[in-house]
Amino acid sequence: MNQDYIVPDNWSIIEEGFDAERVKSSESLFSIGNGAMGQRANFEESYSGHTFQGSYIAGIYYPDKTKVGWWKNGYPEYFAKVLNAPNWIGIDITINGEALDLNTCEQVNYFRRELNMKEGWYNRSFEAVLQNGTAIAVNVTRFLSLEEDELGVIKYDVTPINRAAKITFSPYVDAGVTNEDTNWEEKFWQPVAVKHSDNAAFVTARTFKTHFDVATYMHNSLQQAGNNVDIAPVDVKVTDDKVQFTYSVDAAQGQATSIVKLGGYTVSLNHTADKLVEAAQNVIDAAQAKGYDALLAEQKEAWAKIWEMADITIDGDVKAQQGIRFNIFQLNQTYLGKDARLNIGPKGFTGEKYGGSTYWDTEAYCIPFYMATKDQQVARNLLTYRYEHLEKAIENAVKLGFTNGAALYPMVTMNGEECHNEWEITFEEIHRNGAIAFAVYNYYRFTGDYSYIPEKGLEVLIGIARFWQQRATFSSHKNKYMILGVTGPNEYENNISNNFYTNYIAKWCIDYTIEQIAKVKEEYNEDYSRIMAKVNLNDAELQQWKKVADNMYFPYSEEHGVYLQQDGFLDKELVPVSELDRSQRPINQKWSWDRILRSPYIKQADVLQGFYFFEDDFNKEQLEKHFDFYEPLTVHESSLSPCVHSIQAATLGRMEQAYMFYLRTSRLDLDDYNKEVEEGLHITSMAGTWMSIVEGFGGMRVKNDTLHFEPRIPEQWQGYSFKINFRNQILKVSINATETKFTLEGDKQLTVFVNGKEVRVEPDALVTV
Amino acid sequence: MNQDYIVPDNWSIIEEGFDAERVKSSESLFSIGNGAMGQRANFEESYSGHTFQGSYIAGIYYPDKTKVGWWKNGYPEYFAKVLNAPNWIGIDITINGEALDLNTCEQVNYFRRELNMKEGWYNRSFEAVLQNGTAIAVNVTRFLSLEEDELGVIKYDVTPINRAAKITFSPYVDAGVTNEDTNWEEKFWQPVAVKHSDNAAFVTARTFKTHFDVATYMHNSLQQAGNNVDIAPVDVKVTDDKVQFTYSVDAAQGQATSIVKLGGYTVSLNHTADKLVEAAQNVIDAAQAKGYDALLAEQKEAWAKIWEMADITIDGDVKAQQGIRFNIFQLNQTYLGKDARLNIGPKGFTGEKYGGSTYWDTEAYCIPFYMATKDQQVARNLLTYRYEHLEKAIENAVKLGFTNGAALYPMVTMNGEECHNEWEITFEEIHRNGAIAFAVYNYYRFTGDYSYIPEKGLEVLIGIARFWQQRATFSSHKNKYMILGVTGPNEYENNISNNFYTNYIAKWCIDYTIEQIAKVKEEYNEDYSRIMAKVNLNDAELQQWKKVADNMYFPYSEEHGVYLQQDGFLDKELVPVSELDRSQRPINQKWSWDRILRSPYIKQADVLQGFYFFEDDFNKEQLEKHFDFYEPLTVHESSLSPCVHSIQAATLGRMEQAYMFYLRTSRLDLDDYNKEVEEGLHITSMAGTWMSIVEGFGGMRVKNDTLHFEPRIPEQWQGYSFKINFRNQILKVSINATETKFTLEGDKQLTVFVNGKEVRVEPDALVTV
Repeated sequence: MNQDYIVPDNWSIIEEGFDAERVKSSESLFSIGNGAMGQRANFEESYSGHTFQGSYIAGIYYPDKTKVGWWKNGYPEYFAKVLNAPNWIGIDITINGEALDLNTCEQVNYFRRELNMKEGWYNRSFEAVLQNGTAIAVNVTRFLSLEEDELGVIKYDVTPINRAAKITFSPYVDAGVTNEDTNWEEKFWQPVAVKHSDNAAFVTARTFKTHFDVATYMHNSLQQAGNNVDIAPVDVKVTDDKVQFTYSVDAAQGQATSIVKLGGYTVSLNHTADKLVEAAQNVIDAAQAKGYDALLAEQKEAWAKIWEMADITIDGDVKAQQGIRFNIFQLNQTYLGKDARLNIGPKGFTGEKYGGSTYWDTEAYCIPFYMATKDQQVARNLLTYRYEHLEKAIENAVKLGFTNGAALYPMVTMNGEECHNEWEITFEEIHRNGAIAFAVYNYYRFTGDYSYIPEKGLEVLIGIARFWQQRATFSSHKNKYMILGVTGPNEYENNISNNFYTNYIAKWCIDYTIEQIAKVKEEYNEDYSRIMAKVNLNDAELQQWKKVADNMYFPYSEEHGVYLQQDGFLDKELVPVSELDRSQRPINQKWSWDRILRSPYIKQADVLQGFYFFEDDFNKEQLEKHFDFYEPLTVHESSLSPCVHSIQAATLGRMEQAYMFYLRTSRLDLDDYNKEVEEGLHITSMAGTWMSIVEGFGGMRVKNDTLHFEPRIPEQWQGYSFKINFRNQILKVSINATETKFTLEGDKQLTVFVNGKEVRVEPDALVTV
Repeated sequence: MNQDYIVPDNWSIIEEGFDAERVKSSESLFSIGNGAMGQRANFEESYSGHTFQGSYIAGIYYPDKTKVGWWKNGYPEYFAKVLNAPNWIGIDITINGEALDLNTCEQVNYFRRELNMKEGWYNRSFEAVLQNGTAIAVNVTRFLSLEEDELGVIKYDVTPINRAAKITFSPYVDAGVTNEDTNWEEKFWQPVAVKHSDNAAFVTARTFKTHFDVATYMHNSLQQAGNNVDIAPVDVKVTDDKVQFTYSVDAAQGQATSIVKLGGYTVSLNHTADKLVEAAQNVIDAAQAKGYDALLAEQKEAWAKIWEMADITIDGDVKAQQGIRFNIFQLNQTYLGKDARLNIGPKGFTGEKYGGSTYWDTEAYCIPFYMATKDQQVARNLLTYRYEHLEKAIENAVKLGFTNGAALYPMVTMNGEECHNEWEITFEEIHRNGAIAFAVYNYYRFTGDYSYIPEKGLEVLIGIARFWQQRATFSSHKNKYMILGVTGPNEYENNISNNFYTNYIAKWCIDYTIEQIAKVKEEYNEDYSRIMAKVNLNDAELQQWKKVADNMYFPYSEEHGVYLQQDGFLDKELVPVSELDRSQRPINQKWSWDRILRSPYIKQADVLQGFYFFEDDFNKEQLEKHFDFYEPLTVHESSLSPCVHSIQAATLGRMEQAYMFYLRTSRLDLDDYNKEVEEGLHITSMAGTWMSIVEGFGGMRVKNDTLHFEPRIPEQWQGYSFKINFRNQILKVSINATETKFTLEGDKQLTVFVNGKEVRVEPDALVTV
């Protein structure tokens, strides 16, 4: 943890001073993205210190050959990896013949990074003295256009401070890149063609195996004293995967020279392969026509629109404010919901780790955020993503011995195929199926759009219900159905039996599917006939489902009055985390796996995750009992843990604890709680941060098509506000210690409940409670 | 399974007819070894069909970099692999200018392999017509000398049948070999030097990382019509890792030409690195002086000595006879007990699979065989091997969080370091520690040699007892000590709690260690003081051990009257194996791992393994109940399973079942039950086959320093006999349906019990019971 690294600011992420040790961490924290592409905050100029180079294109992946010790039946052959994409940002610089490299400069007198979240740009400025004695000031602004998602823009200014200087700018595009996490040190990109003309260059490369074609392009222009300089490259270097131009200018002492580099990708997901260069040229032409200032203005405007809907304000606590905005900003950089083929990777465009793009994180954590802050089509796209993968989920289940259309969605996927390979997770962390069903329910609950279920959702639900029925084992010994051999949300337990969360959501899935079948039969008979013809479901099978759901086993301790996380949990030595020596933590970095497994320590909400999803099935006293039993044993070593605990602590009125968990989730990366931010950001948990404010402090729930609030406020805050897109009307909620204010953008009166009391909110009128 | 492959014969393994599909399997089955080196039955001449090349040198290994998907704390960095050693057997042949290659010959009219177990040689003879129309007869005999364990001998005869022929023999030594199972496609051997003079050549190579130096040598001589031909190579090819000579001779039709190739290895384990070539030259000189016929005669004599002591005869059942002799033969080819640095690899010198050389197999299965058929020093050497590794076992435990001298022996090792890396096995299959302690007890029980315990064994026992005490968890819920998160002998369960076998042997280890501490204190006070000064053990710690042992938890079912294999076992669907569809088996090839884990199916004896080790703690009724409960759920997919079941079936008087299990263990490889013999033989389970006759049918036990027998005989047999070296006297036991005969080679009267009745056996006198 490092609380003094990022300068607190309401709207920006700011780093001051140059520290080579922080370069990789800052590369993560200052990452930018526009939903279609993104990149770590790598320097444009060459840098010989430690760095983790990363540029990423949404939907472009590489199926790396799986690496295992001992192969097990059912393992996937390939592991789809986030692919480090060709570099378009690079600009080598020399000053009076010496390469600019912050790692070898004589002095760095000033260094500042700013990620302006309000306006969507990243700036880096510094003053350095090179070994040849030339002092320069550099100011670089970079952004990825929200308007034109194939376009990135860099404006790189250099000013000699202490003498005149000959400056060379050598911008390049380079497909000769590799992944840090390649399993077999294979290359992922095959060069296809290079092309350049005037100040533009194009490198086309194709991914091996997946055969995605990508044209990486650049266009360069120079300015001095604010005026365009008409200049041609003095040198052009071309290899089969790289083009580099060199421009040379003379700058007087104190005179700024700028290179504006446009760049980015056109990809075969969106264009035919033979038109990629043409498409890129079109992007360049359009951008050139607008010019840098107009592009930046557009960018500010586009981000203003996002904030208009998604912003959460917090008064009186800059760090909390900065945290939530950073989270909302990164979520929007990662996924904008325009394309149902895409999803939300746990590291977004900020690192390689974890591979794949889609985990249960999407359904369990991200959907509420996107439902409430975007058009409902965005959430529907996320659901559709799974519908499109249903066939592959059925194939995946077949590999594991299931039949008759049972579907097991992959633990990690890019294209619907499983690409994770540890048996205890891939084969056993089956609760993911539950979250996918729950999201269907949650979408309808929030949006009121039932149409998704007869159109697509019911087929998904049936595949999932079939899986659970087949996966359950009848224990004649206990005369109950059990689910043996699973890993629950708490991944610090493997191959356990009767994980409460898994059993509970399995039963729920079956019950909910049976209900929806009945409803669709009743209300959407045409869809019903179509689906039944397809899935071949009969009454005998339904009875079998019901038998499993009605007789599901849940381990329970009479002594403690709690559901047990799994069979045998009470046999562990239940020593609370608070009694663990600090030197032993995080246990996942200090302990061998067997030791973690036999310990009582919980990585993230597990029983409590069930209480979060199915809150209405339990009373507050039960929640309190379970929270008090499990939270003290929880090490929160998953980024997904603090948010659920924050919400539940708030629900229980434990505001200090809720606030502590809130800071931990919202500033997880900014304050580097887990000492790993250099690997990339924790994107999916950022949606949990949003929930911890809206559902935790705001106490927002949807019940019977109506919004309910139980507003609470941490004592550190003077007030906070958020907006909710509830069924196509925008409700703004502002809360302080004494009152809650509502304003509504829309055209219909909205009834909400505040602490159980009905409140009518009229369009464009302020209501104070 | 393939019952018609190997021709039944009392003393030989015979294959008739050439089938390219069987080449790899036969390479395993006809493997030869002499304890110091060994090799698969690869052809000397080149062969372009499928083959698995393997030559191995005892104690020479390579620490291949571990390959895992996701790294876990405590994993070993290296995985010690059996190393494919340089090739000394190769002899390329041309006949009238065409290369001899059985894969491309026009016809193979005759093909026969024989592994003569009685005399210790392997012969291959065939007649083939080459594409150039020349028909030849080939007869090759190969053996690895038991007398001179650095020497191998090949006599390769070629006779042109249908015309005269120019024959070239091109023998070579070649260090440019690789392993089939390399993790990272690295080379394991670095060439050091090559040398040749006259008809001898030497290639010295060094293993990377481990830096073992090995000189691989050859010496060639030719004979025609039984007379030596004085001939020099017509060609010598030398590269940095290979020397190949070419000899050319003219042979009249019907005239045999032979090349006698001497070859083998001298290694830096036994010589200084700079003397390897000299040492090899000495081996050549000595062998040359003796000549081929004398060397072969020596070999026959050496094997006669082994059989004199180790043979088991079975009358009236050739397949059973062939099976047991194959098992005894392979055990003696693998390990002769001369060198305490060596151990018994599960594949011996017949394949690469499994890596490492030492598993719990040695202590649990092999030691009884070596104790009873060799000098007791051999078993003591096997125990000493673990004593020498005690420090590393303590280091291994430290990696997993244990302290204070607790020792966890590795699951798989070559040099004392763990080299297996699957958490569920490496970290959790801790019962191996129990077998290592049990072997100390078993050695004393059988040999009566207590001196090992004060000298070495007690330190091992203390390290192991400390491990168990620390590994146990106190369940305040059940007020018992438990062992959570283990894999028992049944590897089809992972991360289970309270595995009966593990808990039982853990308790036994502590109890036994406490007893031995008391005995050593009493009777070997000097050793006691030395050991206590070293291990720093006090009374408080002993009390802590006792608390764990006295309060160990054992899961038990009142309903079934059986100990449960582990917590929750009864929750499984207990469908017997007999009801499993044949298409589903072997389940380890057909099912995904999670499905195996949640099934009730047992890979090998687990609870029953405990009943085998601790037979006296249970009565026959209990054994029967447990056998009837567990055996029907057992798939016997471990080679170590049938032997224990054979013994117990015999004990229960179920001779048909015992016989069926006997065939399965004794002919596992000959009949290729598991369809994998091409990967190599199952050496360690062969000792289990020996036990199934001696302990199963013979009913031999040692109780109170006395041999007990309960002789039984399968109805398929007329009689059988075996010999036991019991405390330096040799007892021969011959059993038929009506009587048991004993003869004793020794000088003291021996009292044995037969079915509980005392029998006195005098030296050199026949006693019939």
